[in-house]
Amino acid sequence: MSNKKAVVLVSGGLDSATILAMAREQGFDCYALSFDYGQRHRCELEASAEVAKTLGVLEHRILQLDLRQFGGSALTDDTIDVPQSLGDGIPVTYVPARNTIFLSMAMAWAEVLGALDIFVGVNAVDYSGYPDCRQEYIEAFEKMANLATKSGVEGNHLSIHTPLIDLTKADIIRQGTRLGVDYGKTLSCYNPDERGLACGVCDSCRLRAAGFVTAGVADPTHYQG
Amino acid sequence: MSNKKAVVLVSGGLDSATILAMAREQGFDCYALSFDYGQRHRCELEASAEVAKTLGVLEHRILQLDLRQFGGSALTDDTIDVPQSLGDGIPVTYVPARNTIFLSMAMAWAEVLGALDIFVGVNAVDYSGYPDCRQEYIEAFEKMANLATKSGVEGNHLSIHTPLIDLTKADIIRQGTRLGVDYGKTLSCYNPDERGLACGVCDSCRLRAAGFVTAGVADPTHYQG
Repeated sequence: MSNKKAVVLVSGGLDSATILAMAREQGFDCYALSFDYGQRHRCELEASAEVAKTLGVLEHRILQLDLRQFGGSALTDDTIDVPQSLGDGIPVTYVPARNTIFLSMAMAWAEVLGALDIFVGVNAVDYSGYPDCRQEYIEAFEKMANLATKSGVEGNHLSIHTPLIDLTKADIIRQGTRLGVDYGKTLSCYNPDERGLACGVCDSCRLRAAGFVTAGVADPTHYQG
Repeated sequence: MSNKKAVVLVSGGLDSATILAMAREQGFDCYALSFDYGQRHRCELEASAEVAKTLGVLEHRILQLDLRQFGGSALTDDTIDVPQSLGDGIPVTYVPARNTIFLSMAMAWAEVLGALDIFVGVNAVDYSGYPDCRQEYIEAFEKMANLATKSGVEGNHLSIHTPLIDLTKADIIRQGTRLGVDYGKTLSCYNPDERGLACGVCDSCRLRAAGFVTAGVADPTHYQG
């Protein structure tokens, strides 16, 4: 058994299930962190609990954090519609400062746990419109984190791991499939129904479905209708 | 009237009341942000509302954010005592990642408001034991923030203002007094009683009281007994 601890951000989607499996493969004892941030698709939280349990985390915490108070995104603001097709530029599904807030919380928990590793499933290929999914952003966050924390000041290096950052959706699915991830338990859809079934037509569903096709892996997603 | 907007982190303490007055003096329309993060001294939140109101903010939001879930600090963990004297190194009153979490939230609100300025009352002189009160940390955060956000990507520079960073407590009190801040409405104590009266003996009270003495300003703090 390893005694290396890692905090892993787990949303319940395909990407974060994959990084959890990857962190475990690297020998980390994993602590999963999810956020109840007022997202429309609350069944994502149930998926995150299922994913965390299936992949053997030592602890899973869901932190309440009401980002709806700020609005500004289709994912947290009911007055903005979720688009069903890809557009140019930064998507309306972008949640202001979301990754920074999530990573900050992971940093806080890591410090209390004595963990020096944080895993986050950001991806610059499929989500190129999100500024906080880019490598240069992650590097800047890591540098800041090492100046912010007690462990950093004491000379221990905190690492932000983004093993998916340059992978295509198909590559991610291949990696996860190799590690035994059950993607049928994950949920990526922006517009799931009340049973947690995927719509099959939003940006996120399309990218995911295309990934399974390209990877040559049967799509286990539970779709509506 | 200016149409420059700034998000100002307001704790209800002496420092943040001063930066709010400074931001206003610089012509900013101020949006005050406070956190209900499970701190022991909840009367601080009442002080923050009073300070925000007195100093004419356009809006004051108190965000729920339960940092007690992580523990690790005397300010949020009931099992750790708040010390009554200054020690060496990083104090037990340090809350892991607190400034990073607060600044991340300020960044989110700033982006939704279209504000490019954030004011935070960090101070490297009196709180030299806190890693996230240092200039190099703030610079790293600002760099990260400009890579993280839509406004940064679009070429607008987000600035983190720390006008108190190199000031002594006495300097801060002189500045605020010049700007008409009523420090009797602020609360800095780590151990206030249920009426919100300051203990007069904790680190924070001592630094504050000494500041008034050095500044030659009458101390308007409401002390217990």
